[in-house]
Amino acid sequence: MMGPLAERSGNRNSWSSLLIMPQRIDDLRPRLEFFRSRIYSTLQMCVLIAGLAAMAAATMPNIRPELRFWLSIVLWCCLAFYTFELSARLWLRQSSDRGPAYPLTATGAIDLLAVVPVPIALLFGLPSETAWLLASLWLLKVTMSVSGLSLLWRVISLELRALASVFVIFLIVLLFAAVALHLIEGPGQPDRFGSLPLSLWWAVTTLTTTGYGDAVPATFLGRAIAGMVMICGLGVFGLWTGILATGFAAEHRRRDFIRNWDHVTRVPFFRNLKPSAIIELTRMLRRVDVAEKTVVVRRGRRGDCMYFIAAGEVEVKLEPEPVRLGPGAFFGEIALLEGGPRVATVVTTVPTTLLVLDVSDFRAFTAIHPDLAQAVEAEAARRGGKG
Amino acid sequence: MMGPLAERSGNRNSWSSLLIMPQRIDDLRPRLEFFRSRIYSTLQMCVLIAGLAAMAAATMPNIRPELRFWLSIVLWCCLAFYTFELSARLWLRQSSDRGPAYPLTATGAIDLLAVVPVPIALLFGLPSETAWLLASLWLLKVTMSVSGLSLLWRVISLELRALASVFVIFLIVLLFAAVALHLIEGPGQPDRFGSLPLSLWWAVTTLTTTGYGDAVPATFLGRAIAGMVMICGLGVFGLWTGILATGFAAEHRRRDFIRNWDHVTRVPFFRNLKPSAIIELTRMLRRVDVAEKTVVVRRGRRGDCMYFIAAGEVEVKLEPEPVRLGPGAFFGEIALLEGGPRVATVVTTVPTTLLVLDVSDFRAFTAIHPDLAQAVEAEAARRGGKG
Amino acid sequence: MMGPLAERSGNRNSWSSLLIMPQRIDDLRPRLEFFRSRIYSTLQMCVLIAGLAAMAAATMPNIRPELRFWLSIVLWCCLAFYTFELSARLWLRQSSDRGPAYPLTATGAIDLLAVVPVPIALLFGLPSETAWLLASLWLLKVTMSVSGLSLLWRVISLELRALASVFVIFLIVLLFAAVALHLIEGPGQPDRFGSLPLSLWWAVTTLTTTGYGDAVPATFLGRAIAGMVMICGLGVFGLWTGILATGFAAEHRRRDFIRNWDHVTRVPFFRNLKPSAIIELTRMLRRVDVAEKTVVVRRGRRGDCMYFIAAGEVEVKLEPEPVRLGPGAFFGEIALLEGGPRVATVVTTVPTTLLVLDVSDFRAFTAIHPDLAQAVEAEAARRGGKG
Amino acid sequence: MMGPLAERSGNRNSWSSLLIMPQRIDDLRPRLEFFRSRIYSTLQMCVLIAGLAAMAAATMPNIRPELRFWLSIVLWCCLAFYTFELSARLWLRQSSDRGPAYPLTATGAIDLLAVVPVPIALLFGLPSETAWLLASLWLLKVTMSVSGLSLLWRVISLELRALASVFVIFLIVLLFAAVALHLIEGPGQPDRFGSLPLSLWWAVTTLTTTGYGDAVPATFLGRAIAGMVMICGLGVFGLWTGILATGFAAEHRRRDFIRNWDHVTRVPFFRNLKPSAIIELTRMLRRVDVAEKTVVVRRGRRGDCMYFIAAGEVEVKLEPEPVRLGPGAFFGEIALLEGGPRVATVVTTVPTTLLVLDVSDFRAFTAIHPDLAQAVEAEAARRGGKG
Repeated sequence: MMGPLAERSGNRNSWSSLLIMPQRIDDLRPRLEFFRSRIYSTLQMCVLIAGLAAMAAATMPNIRPELRFWLSIVLWCCLAFYTFELSARLWLRQSSDRGPAYPLTATGAIDLLAVVPVPIALLFGLPSETAWLLASLWLLKVTMSVSGLSLLWRVISLELRALASVFVIFLIVLLFAAVALHLIEGPGQPDRFGSLPLSLWWAVTTLTTTGYGDAVPATFLGRAIAGMVMICGLGVFGLWTGILATGFAAEHRRRDFIRNWDHVTRVPFFRNLKPSAIIELTRMLRRVDVAEKTVVVRRGRRGDCMYFIAAGEVEVKLEPEPVRLGPGAFFGEIALLEGGPRVATVVTTVPTTLLVLDVSDFRAFTAIHPDLAQAVEAEAARRGGKG
Repeated sequence: MMGPLAERSGNRNSWSSLLIMPQRIDDLRPRLEFFRSRIYSTLQMCVLIAGLAAMAAATMPNIRPELRFWLSIVLWCCLAFYTFELSARLWLRQSSDRGPAYPLTATGAIDLLAVVPVPIALLFGLPSETAWLLASLWLLKVTMSVSGLSLLWRVISLELRALASVFVIFLIVLLFAAVALHLIEGPGQPDRFGSLPLSLWWAVTTLTTTGYGDAVPATFLGRAIAGMVMICGLGVFGLWTGILATGFAAEHRRRDFIRNWDHVTRVPFFRNLKPSAIIELTRMLRRVDVAEKTVVVRRGRRGDCMYFIAAGEVEVKLEPEPVRLGPGAFFGEIALLEGGPRVATVVTTVPTTLLVLDVSDFRAFTAIHPDLAQAVEAEAARRGGKG
Repeated sequence: MMGPLAERSGNRNSWSSLLIMPQRIDDLRPRLEFFRSRIYSTLQMCVLIAGLAAMAAATMPNIRPELRFWLSIVLWCCLAFYTFELSARLWLRQSSDRGPAYPLTATGAIDLLAVVPVPIALLFGLPSETAWLLASLWLLKVTMSVSGLSLLWRVISLELRALASVFVIFLIVLLFAAVALHLIEGPGQPDRFGSLPLSLWWAVTTLTTTGYGDAVPATFLGRAIAGMVMICGLGVFGLWTGILATGFAAEHRRRDFIRNWDHVTRVPFFRNLKPSAIIELTRMLRRVDVAEKTVVVRRGRRGDCMYFIAAGEVEVKLEPEPVRLGPGAFFGEIALLEGGPRVATVVTTVPTTLLVLDVSDFRAFTAIHPDLAQAVEAEAARRGGKG
Repeated sequence: MMGPLAERSGNRNSWSSLLIMPQRIDDLRPRLEFFRSRIYSTLQMCVLIAGLAAMAAATMPNIRPELRFWLSIVLWCCLAFYTFELSARLWLRQSSDRGPAYPLTATGAIDLLAVVPVPIALLFGLPSETAWLLASLWLLKVTMSVSGLSLLWRVISLELRALASVFVIFLIVLLFAAVALHLIEGPGQPDRFGSLPLSLWWAVTTLTTTGYGDAVPATFLGRAIAGMVMICGLGVFGLWTGILATGFAAEHRRRDFIRNWDHVTRVPFFRNLKPSAIIELTRMLRRVDVAEKTVVVRRGRRGDCMYFIAAGEVEVKLEPEPVRLGPGAFFGEIALLEGGPRVATVVTTVPTTLLVLDVSDFRAFTAIHPDLAQAVEAEAARRGGKG
């Protein structure tokens, strides 16, 4: 889950760089980078899991005192970690002097929420177990490293009107079902349908198809209405899913296009194409972020795509000596042109962003724009002559 | 939920306008407008929530008599509000003299249903608690201010044939499962599977995956069939969702097109485009209704779209003095053309309808129709020269 | 649900035609038609509901003997009705002499299954209540009048391979969860998880999110695994829905195209269009079957589509005298061309098939193919000159 | 489920070929083929079902000793079968000498997992019933013969980022709901909400809408929050489904294109088409694998598609004598061109791969590319002259 952020930076020895006091403002950059490194995100994940596990364990009543002591130490350590993280970020951000005050940004607010509430609750005299429950706010830290969350948020906000309409249908069915069951089942089961709030509780568990079974209609008419409520529940669910599926498909396409466009325009190979062809190609390419020292293509495997390098570097393991390809180059085209297996293994040397063109799109595209195929073939021939 | 209606009108002092008797028929218009204003819709929402909460609370048996008295007053006040609303609308509509008689329209019928049933029930001697349950009809008032409901209705009516087919499959599985379980489990659990209606009740709770757990098969064969029924339930659900998702996607596109078309043709900037380009653009633009005094674009943020004003007015917060742009103008193009952050904050002055063109669509469109890009650039240059 | 079949034929006096013996083979046609008429399908529906209700009621143990007698009479009447239907169809089909033997067709098999099993079961000495449960086969008759069922079947058969893959995942999760819970919970709850079949029963109710609650894990590890099984259940469900939604969207488009094509080529108005334009138009038009004497367009309403008559006849309620339009004509175009409300009410005189062109598609199409717009305008002008 | 593999080979007498010792390396090929034949896959399926059923039955406590003995024999036989299969494959693969060592491939690992764990567990002294539970790993063998699994895997891996985002939302709602209910319901129901792990168990059963009903909130506030959790559950589910549906639709199209392309380029009939037309056609054609001696087209039925033979052979049952068509030929075109029923029955003679062109696509394609229609008509006329 923390992959995308971590992939961009692979400096393994960044711990030491944090401990030495920076001499100049320029020294801050690698320190800021540290907060995006892979070790740091792994550490963060461990702290979060340990903290939440300790919080959950501390609420159990039949726990031994010595274990409770150790849990408490884990919790205080996690809090110390988050306090350190908050103050480090505050100090770094302060000196960099860009944008709004740190505690007012979304990240800053989450960092503050992780640190402040628990001590305040303890100061106000809440019992220790209750106060530490506020540590559940630590989970919000995960949202910072999940890249797809803004996409989901946008889909939901765009489709809010339609989702609200379904919610109104949901409410109407809910209320009418509750009133009907209150009238029908109320006299027979006064402790389960005797008031409208009780009846609404039954209705919400039934309409969402949760079905606890604590309140179940007993009369024929009540059961017939309950059956209809369940079917309505499936329908409401289907509508909701339909709206979200539609919105998600549209937003997905749009987001991919924006991301790919920036990378496509950086590949010199595509610059000679007509603008309409670039648009088409941008829709076809899939962007993939690959960590360093990762095998992209393995010799002898069947190839079903070719790759353009948007950023980073790869090493083609050719026989006499390996060849390195930088941004703008492409590889994996021989399997597409000749239809055979991969002829060489390709490994990334640094974190690399690749644009993947599938065989289906390659064929569809080159059938309409033969110049790309010719250019790829010419380059492949040139390489063959050289290699 | 009441936003869309409220956005169109922002007259805050409309209360007073209602209290003065109108001199001429033309005076009726602002009074009709009042029923769409933001305060009024907030008031409506408060009355509805208070009324429904009071109705629900009044059904609780262990409530104190003095609280019951106050609940009763709240309910009568809500009824008075809806009676006033109905009579105001009847009187206004009568004088305006257009269309069919008000109580025969959908809105009129809902207004009538909110007022008439409770007093009639009380007159017919129903106990007070039962009679007030009819106040649940007040919830139907919400449907008037939810804009997406007609869209949902249309999707359902268009796909009715396919949905009915799934319902028939649902019924067949339901009946056959009930008969099988009645035969298998009937002898062992006569109070749960002893008759077909009892068995049908089990089948409907299982097929909808509600699973109350009040009737559970105990034999091996019964459980095997129950497992298959559950899997069928998932399948039926999937079919339903698939049908609704398909229908919703198609109807969504169609509806957006009709709405956008009217706005696109009003923007003078688009009139020089070829008809086929206008069609394309209409498919790309997203219509957004913005309330007055809302920040549309904030300086320094990353821009990923430009805006055309279909109706209303915005103020661009430029440095020497702010600039106002009216219908037909556009803004936010500099971030797209130059790829940098927003250079000025833009705020609406009145409720405004904007057409949003995302960066992906802007690039796709201008690549094929370079005249739009040139026109946008020329206008941007002209502005830069002036500002 | 029986609408589509019934709409094609509206002869109300077809009962009498059935009672007179046919003199010639040609007389058979109207009699066959009777089986598709609206009264007949209503009668069929009543018989089905009465029969199934009587069957369900007869299984209830605490029913009075005289009511049981009447239920039995209802059941025998329904059986007599189906026997009559089967023999009528056998006799009619035999004389018409086309296709395979009637009992071998799908319809014939369903007709046979409705009539034969109950008497056979009674002959073999089954108790009356058990034998009559076979009357649940009557429900299969509904499948004959549901038009969308073949579409569903085709989608399922096309996507069978993908659905089977999801089913395999389902089975693997099911078995592994059952084995794990049997090991973990078995010692503590031997009557619920003590054997693998018991544990599988728990797994299937959990994985389908039915959740009866008769078997619930009690240990920490068991509950952690149960939580993962529930999440897998949501995932399996989502995959299933995704596959069906995809398949349904594709098949829907294909089916509509085939149906519309036949009708579009019959409208003389479209014959001058280029083939590629006809293809486009066929994708845009929606086919609607309307019963006789139905209002299609009502004067004064907002118009958002125009209509082409594929088969049947409509009456335009113009002021001096109404005008009748037959197959190939169109109406409702004025609201699209001029943007105002409908200028006349249009009523069907016989069952009519209409092709509906929405305003969005009309504008999109005429922007690219202006000849259709011109032809529509010319025809509208000609009519205006005449009317 | 085992169909796709089985279809490719139909040699019924392959048992005997396995028993004779191969003289040369070339003799291995038919033996390898045996592992893909239809009888073998049926046998495999029977062994799997028998083995898993015996394993499940052996865990039941109240089973008779003599039955337990027989179950044990069945289990040992299944293990012997899988051991034989593993050693046969090891020996065959070793002599063929291609690719990596067999136990390191996915198939080899599954074969090893089916054989090794049970004896090891028995050796380590586990009780017999527990050890045999490892036989549930046999189910993994099914994944080898399910063709759609790699597609599902790819969809999931492509959408992993979005799915993970939804999972994070799921976790946040889960934890916050659990904390809230622990605080609200904890004092009243200490055995159900008294600790956070207990409360989390309630939250996961509710959020997945499973709803066991073992822990149910009793206070008003607790139930209000529970209702919101259920609605969030539906939302999370909807998001998940939407993501998977979108991803599945895209991947499905891509996969079909790659498969069809290889077959389309093998049909000589399509070679004269322009590349863009071939692309279009590849998108339209559906690939169908048909077993030998299967009726593809039945005389007198309504035809809604034509067929191109990509591989294999069919026999057209014409009147004087049947005609055989090989790869590259087509049939079923007369029903499309003339719109009538099928004029001849067509049966496959060997396992055949057909490319199906639906009537809708045929008409859409030939309207834009009339040369295909002419070629089909010319060939049909030539055949008519000959036949």
